[in-house]
Amino acid sequence: MNFAGLFQQRLEALHQEGRYRVFADLKRRRGSFPVADHFAANGSHEVTVWCSNDYLGMGQHPAVLTAMHQAIDAVGAGSGGTRNISGTTHYHVELESELADLHGKEAALLFTSAYIANDATLSTLLKLVPGTVVFSDEKNHASMIEGIRHGQCEKHIFRHNDVADLEEKLKKFPQGTPKIIAFESVYSMDGHIAPTAAICDLAEKYGALTYLDEVHAVGMYGPRGGGIAERDGVMDRVDIINGTLAKGFGVMGGYIAGSRDLCDAIRSFASAFIFTTSLAPAIVAGALASVRHLKTNAFERVRHQERVRTLKALLKAKRLPVMDNPSHIVPVMVGCPVHCKAVTDALLHQYGIYVQPINYPTVSKGTERMRLTPSPVHSDEQMANLIRALEELWAACPVSNGTYVRLAAE
Amino acid sequence: MNFAGLFQQRLEALHQEGRYRVFADLKRRRGSFPVADHFAANGSHEVTVWCSNDYLGMGQHPAVLTAMHQAIDAVGAGSGGTRNISGTTHYHVELESELADLHGKEAALLFTSAYIANDATLSTLLKLVPGTVVFSDEKNHASMIEGIRHGQCEKHIFRHNDVADLEEKLKKFPQGTPKIIAFESVYSMDGHIAPTAAICDLAEKYGALTYLDEVHAVGMYGPRGGGIAERDGVMDRVDIINGTLAKGFGVMGGYIAGSRDLCDAIRSFASAFIFTTSLAPAIVAGALASVRHLKTNAFERVRHQERVRTLKALLKAKRLPVMDNPSHIVPVMVGCPVHCKAVTDALLHQYGIYVQPINYPTVSKGTERMRLTPSPVHSDEQMANLIRALEELWAACPVSNGTYVRLAAE
Ligand SMILES: Cc1ncc(COP(=O)(O)O)c(C=O)c1O
Ligand SMILES: Cc1ncc(COP(=O)(O)O)c(C=O)c1O
Repeated sequence: MNFAGLFQQRLEALHQEGRYRVFADLKRRRGSFPVADHFAANGSHEVTVWCSNDYLGMGQHPAVLTAMHQAIDAVGAGSGGTRNISGTTHYHVELESELADLHGKEAALLFTSAYIANDATLSTLLKLVPGTVVFSDEKNHASMIEGIRHGQCEKHIFRHNDVADLEEKLKKFPQGTPKIIAFESVYSMDGHIAPTAAICDLAEKYGALTYLDEVHAVGMYGPRGGGIAERDGVMDRVDIINGTLAKGFGVMGGYIAGSRDLCDAIRSFASAFIFTTSLAPAIVAGALASVRHLKTNAFERVRHQERVRTLKALLKAKRLPVMDNPSHIVPVMVGCPVHCKAVTDALLHQYGIYVQPINYPTVSKGTERMRLTPSPVHSDEQMANLIRALEELWAACPVSNGTYVRLAAE
Repeated sequence: MNFAGLFQQRLEALHQEGRYRVFADLKRRRGSFPVADHFAANGSHEVTVWCSNDYLGMGQHPAVLTAMHQAIDAVGAGSGGTRNISGTTHYHVELESELADLHGKEAALLFTSAYIANDATLSTLLKLVPGTVVFSDEKNHASMIEGIRHGQCEKHIFRHNDVADLEEKLKKFPQGTPKIIAFESVYSMDGHIAPTAAICDLAEKYGALTYLDEVHAVGMYGPRGGGIAERDGVMDRVDIINGTLAKGFGVMGGYIAGSRDLCDAIRSFASAFIFTTSLAPAIVAGALASVRHLKTNAFERVRHQERVRTLKALLKAKRLPVMDNPSHIVPVMVGCPVHCKAVTDALLHQYGIYVQPINYPTVSKGTERMRLTPSPVHSDEQMANLIRALEELWAACPVSNGTYVRLAAE
């Protein structure tokens, strides 16, 4: 059997569609992020990063870095085990209780990533409660889709953020059928925000459990950084909240928060929780410092929103095709993988601006885009440079008043 | 729908079977590991850890810790993105090339854990090559089982390390059928070692791809720590090697090594690789230092094997039911979850020795055990204390000459 030939064919197809991915090889500069060094064949060059999900710059916050250093000095590198077999450190215990408190829940459970938290929690829930029907927003993240698929249940996809469509689908099932509504608060690629209260209303009306991915909201919304559910005052009406420690909190790892029994059941039955080494203590300690900082300091959140407003206004003023939305995500539409790569290559090589082109399967085909993520550490000058570069590229591009703008108006 | 009631029922069943898991809350002491502090309701107490998978003590090696500190100082906490979207740091690039070299392969690919490396690689391979039949050792780890299940293929389980049985199963399929043989080198709970050369012979004879999980071998076997395949001189005959950075290497994360196209295909198509934040730079830098150290220093490996031999000899001399095997894993059989918990609770509370009881689903029911993992940093005195404690507990236990010993002789 010629496996090798088959792999080559699949890769060739990616090249032909223009969506073969080349990873940018980067080294940030701590203390001057978003500045980083970009490594290429001909050496390394300084770039400004405009597409990081270290949304608040917490990845270089002194409190976070100090906590990491201290943990390494105190206990060393890895945890040395799965959670059950010597891999539960006191940092894990403390962070789980801090996260439970953040979301006003009885308990929280750490995973190596929010991807695994979604996949493991949803699939395990569905195995524990056979016959459960899942109602899933059509724009849900790959990790939720995989979790639902792995749970092998009946699934209904509702139109993105469409409460009427969700109700249509819910009402077809008897009250006694176990149901889960799975959705996100901030959708990471379009920046839409879910109508959390309306979805909770429906969940109550039809007796469904609510599962909310707040990965792109924790740390950034709500008075203590509890996310959109906190901001909207519905945290107590959401049964399970999923979050990451890798984006707003700037480190890595993921979690769920919910009732004690729910977390205990997932802890006890989820294979991807049980059979893997726990997060390294330094990671957990850094995340703990980050969560604690953002619980009591609004500075980063306020400055973040200001930077976002400013960038969106600048893009609009120059009639660049920014997609409107109520969040901190700033999508600039291109609509073709080849053009998207061309524009971002030019940004990188001519302007020292790093924005990764976003293509299928991260977004659907035909909606390829640049996804800008202004943070509290992006300066006015860096913003002006970005706008100038985009203006020049758009002016130079023959299709920029065709495909791009049409898509942006979607 | 009463989800809460259902969770309670499932948890209650665990309690009744005696296999409800209580995680030990620990804080290692860097520099004096295996000594750690164990946190309990009544304060914290010093314990000696005897069940960690930080097999070589690399979790406190100065080279590893220095590299982690330096990476935090240089670039900060998290990577800030998925591998594709700003999350490929120069550390990732360097570690992947170091791991490819370690295993004599063209390429390597990092994942957040070896669990995910197994799950994502196997399931993606199976989706890329439809019609593939998998031959899987019956003792394979949960992460491989999940990967194979998620690949939704035809699967045949062969008897543990049984080459004749594997051949029986292979020969039923035409040469042209795509086949994968999935196995481990060191089986983590029994400590058996696979007949790697004989399995490679069969793979060649029947045209199968070989997928080898070396999670409990990398860093520890082979002249450069390349694992059992390196020790056995068959590295070039294994198509895909899976390893962890969390056990022998003492940090966290996982990887595969294989041909360039294979790694590129997994990189390009595996959801659990694509849609998650990459490992934090400090983790990658620490792992890089660990891999480099163990490539050129045999000290830890030699001392590890000596400690293992010594502990096994001491246990046998006292007629304690140690299961024989050719590796560094030292299973002491108990055979009942309730007794296993009782013995390990006594070790913890009366002797300050921490050994987690191993029960279902980690091992099959009726084979509950203690799993001792002597490391280069366990002293003679710590070993003598352990033996003394076990002797006393075995002498005091009415069933110790029944169940325990019978199982140990399996
Ligand atoms: C055989 C085997 N493969 C894979 C894994 C997963 O490794 P990691 O801890 O890096 O997820 C483990 C244990 O954790 C294991 O025992
Ligand atoms: C909506 C959503 N959920 C979950 C994840 C996974 O989070 P993590 O990076 O912690 O795995 C991501 C992105 O990475 C995401 O965009």
